[in-house]
Amino acid sequence: MGEKPLLLGIDIGTSKVAAAIVEPDGMCRESRSVVHGADLACAPGHAEQDPHVLLDAARQVVRDLEPALRQRVEAVGVTGQMHGVVLVDGQGRPVGPLVTWQDQRCDAAFLEGLQERTGHALYSGYGCATLAYAAHSGGLPDGATAACTIHDLLAAQLVGAARPVTDPTNAAAWGLFDLRTLRWDQPAVEAAGISPAWLPEIVPCSACIGRLTEEAAETFGMAASIPVAAALGDNQASLLATLTDPDHEVGLTLGTGGQLSVVLPEGFVPGRRGSVPSFEIRPFPGGRYVAVASALCGGAAWRWLAETAQAWMIDLGVEPPPLDRLYERLNEVGLAAETSIEMDASLAGERHASGRRGCLRGIGVEPMRLGSVARALARGVVRNLRDMLPAEYLVGRRRVAASGNALRRNLLLRVAASEVLDMPVTLSGHIEEAARGAGMNAGLLLD
Amino acid sequence: MGEKPLLLGIDIGTSKVAAAIVEPDGMCRESRSVVHGADLACAPGHAEQDPHVLLDAARQVVRDLEPALRQRVEAVGVTGQMHGVVLVDGQGRPVGPLVTWQDQRCDAAFLEGLQERTGHALYSGYGCATLAYAAHSGGLPDGATAACTIHDLLAAQLVGAARPVTDPTNAAAWGLFDLRTLRWDQPAVEAAGISPAWLPEIVPCSACIGRLTEEAAETFGMAASIPVAAALGDNQASLLATLTDPDHEVGLTLGTGGQLSVVLPEGFVPGRRGSVPSFEIRPFPGGRYVAVASALCGGAAWRWLAETAQAWMIDLGVEPPPLDRLYERLNEVGLAAETSIEMDASLAGERHASGRRGCLRGIGVEPMRLGSVARALARGVVRNLRDMLPAEYLVGRRRVAASGNALRRNLLLRVAASEVLDMPVTLSGHIEEAARGAGMNAGLLLD
Repeated sequence: MGEKPLLLGIDIGTSKVAAAIVEPDGMCRESRSVVHGADLACAPGHAEQDPHVLLDAARQVVRDLEPALRQRVEAVGVTGQMHGVVLVDGQGRPVGPLVTWQDQRCDAAFLEGLQERTGHALYSGYGCATLAYAAHSGGLPDGATAACTIHDLLAAQLVGAARPVTDPTNAAAWGLFDLRTLRWDQPAVEAAGISPAWLPEIVPCSACIGRLTEEAAETFGMAASIPVAAALGDNQASLLATLTDPDHEVGLTLGTGGQLSVVLPEGFVPGRRGSVPSFEIRPFPGGRYVAVASALCGGAAWRWLAETAQAWMIDLGVEPPPLDRLYERLNEVGLAAETSIEMDASLAGERHASGRRGCLRGIGVEPMRLGSVARALARGVVRNLRDMLPAEYLVGRRRVAASGNALRRNLLLRVAASEVLDMPVTLSGHIEEAARGAGMNAGLLLD
Repeated sequence: MGEKPLLLGIDIGTSKVAAAIVEPDGMCRESRSVVHGADLACAPGHAEQDPHVLLDAARQVVRDLEPALRQRVEAVGVTGQMHGVVLVDGQGRPVGPLVTWQDQRCDAAFLEGLQERTGHALYSGYGCATLAYAAHSGGLPDGATAACTIHDLLAAQLVGAARPVTDPTNAAAWGLFDLRTLRWDQPAVEAAGISPAWLPEIVPCSACIGRLTEEAAETFGMAASIPVAAALGDNQASLLATLTDPDHEVGLTLGTGGQLSVVLPEGFVPGRRGSVPSFEIRPFPGGRYVAVASALCGGAAWRWLAETAQAWMIDLGVEPPPLDRLYERLNEVGLAAETSIEMDASLAGERHASGRRGCLRGIGVEPMRLGSVARALARGVVRNLRDMLPAEYLVGRRRVAASGNALRRNLLLRVAASEVLDMPVTLSGHIEEAARGAGMNAGLLLD
């Protein structure tokens, strides 16, 4: 039996870049990551990163991988932070910064006007909102001819293309996308004041966009001419890596925020807009769709409880335990608790309900133990996500594939996920899920 | 200018008896109280006290007052715990225990049946519910010929009457009372299976029921033949003592529970039943009525917060400050806090909404400071009471007359009362309000 082919996946995240060498089934042979520090000082509410720093860091992290493994890589895939946009010139060189998904330059009035004109709900930081804002403020800067995501740009550079292309997972995350045709919603794009020429061409998910240039091959210590797959959105890349049986699993990720994702059955056809307020339908590799509920406050709710307990002790003039020990105790007392207290965990509001806040219900006269609050909060975080998805999407699902640091570190959150979703929970055994998923995506080019 | 007349007031409370010597305007010359320890061991859910112990304690506490003051007393008034019932024989001697307002022998099904038959909502522990239950269970015990409250019984003994009488404030608190005629609701009494002969005759509020017997006068060190007023319910007695301008004040009391009381304008006529779910209309001396909202959880909510803070520290393995210091700090941090957090404070449910529980709303991602919870809770306790009364009853009120230990000890609760009711708050400068009010009530006999 010959050795399995190896694949390289690269992930340009919001705070770090990562690279992984995987086998086609996602088995990880090696992974590396590094905090990139690409954030730029900019106007209040703006969120920008330096694309040169991001691309250099991505190249560097690949070179940190074992040379012997790199030499055996047969295909390359990339992924990265969704929603953001970078402008490029006619030679595919960045013009200006990456405006990230965290950017808040578009105020509510601008977004409402945009929704009225286009029929799409857009959030600030979504590529098409950023481009519409640029158009509204005087057009693209000098020299800019096209826009793309930062991982689209990396992919284009790897294959020596002057004009980046994008795939449906990234295009959908920009906002003015037709989920049924998997193309830009042209009338909406024009209504937003965006020139269709600025938008990258959409190629199918997992398409081969070219072959590794001599220069890139040399930089990476890989064979030239190996295929490079179209960049994938990091949400979908992570799901590729964490779901082992997409038809019968749900993906649950808790970082600062949280996502609950369900890959929809083959043959699913999105509604005209493909989205309702509480969740999004997104394209998924293999011609499929995934329903994603996103909470602004996931793991952050857990930190809220630790910081609240700490604050109470400070308020009472008592020395609190260190935060690490506090997290441990929250787990212990929460796991031991049985309670009828319930907590709504939307502490920061939600994208579809910005006025929502947290609420603790069912408080009786007996002292409210910390464990009861911990358990109620853990359940509330998961229930919040569950209730954003239509109940029928969860029918027939048998397992929760869990990822993200909050789930990795806190058994109580995994127990609560199992209780609330009424399924066993399996924690992803790996890290760098997005980079692994990008590698798996590239593996499709070898079939 | 001659000296003002002096009056004796006696209060047989749930946990203690008190006596006060006051001037007609309520100015207190001396007061005493003693914990009576009259609780009897009885069946689970039953709440009974020994009437002999109560009456002896009441006589004893009077003798603890300064003899020179006692000699000058010109009239006697009594009051005591409302709702309860004691049976007496033909000579006015107790037959069996006092069944107190805390008694729970009537279950929900029995009370519902009673409401269906009588048209009155009755709670377990209310005199007519207790009597209906006795009738249902085989009638009164041997020798019992009549029923009364424990303070009706004391008043009867002071004037040597074999058959106690009662006044509208006490009769209304038993439950099958017609608020418009100020008489027993005879059809309802019969529908409840209660023989009308068991019920005490109703005399007007503040009526003279007789004169002190030689024996009682000797026991008390007072002049024989001084008048004794009909016993008053302790809620109304306390209001008499704490309200200086009943037409423009609201009375707020926070002990374990809480009451918000408004003496209604002259000429107020109660509706047919005189009660709606969230508050009660009760008779008040002077031919008037008072609207009373009662919360099961008033000061107890404040203790809940202290015990919860303590429990969190224990849960985290940290030594909590002593409870007294903790109450102090809750006051300090609560007074310093500004918060948009709100708390519903019905931690134990309410009489009219037994399923209700506490709820903390508006929790954001920032740590929830203890002071914010303290302030939200303090406001919630008062808002809960305010919202039980029709808003129009509060129009034209200019001051809150505050009483009860929770308000006396916690500035934050007084500040919250002022914020929520939008009026200045004056704390009653005296203790033993009910005994003082009973004395003031007796003063009406001297006019």
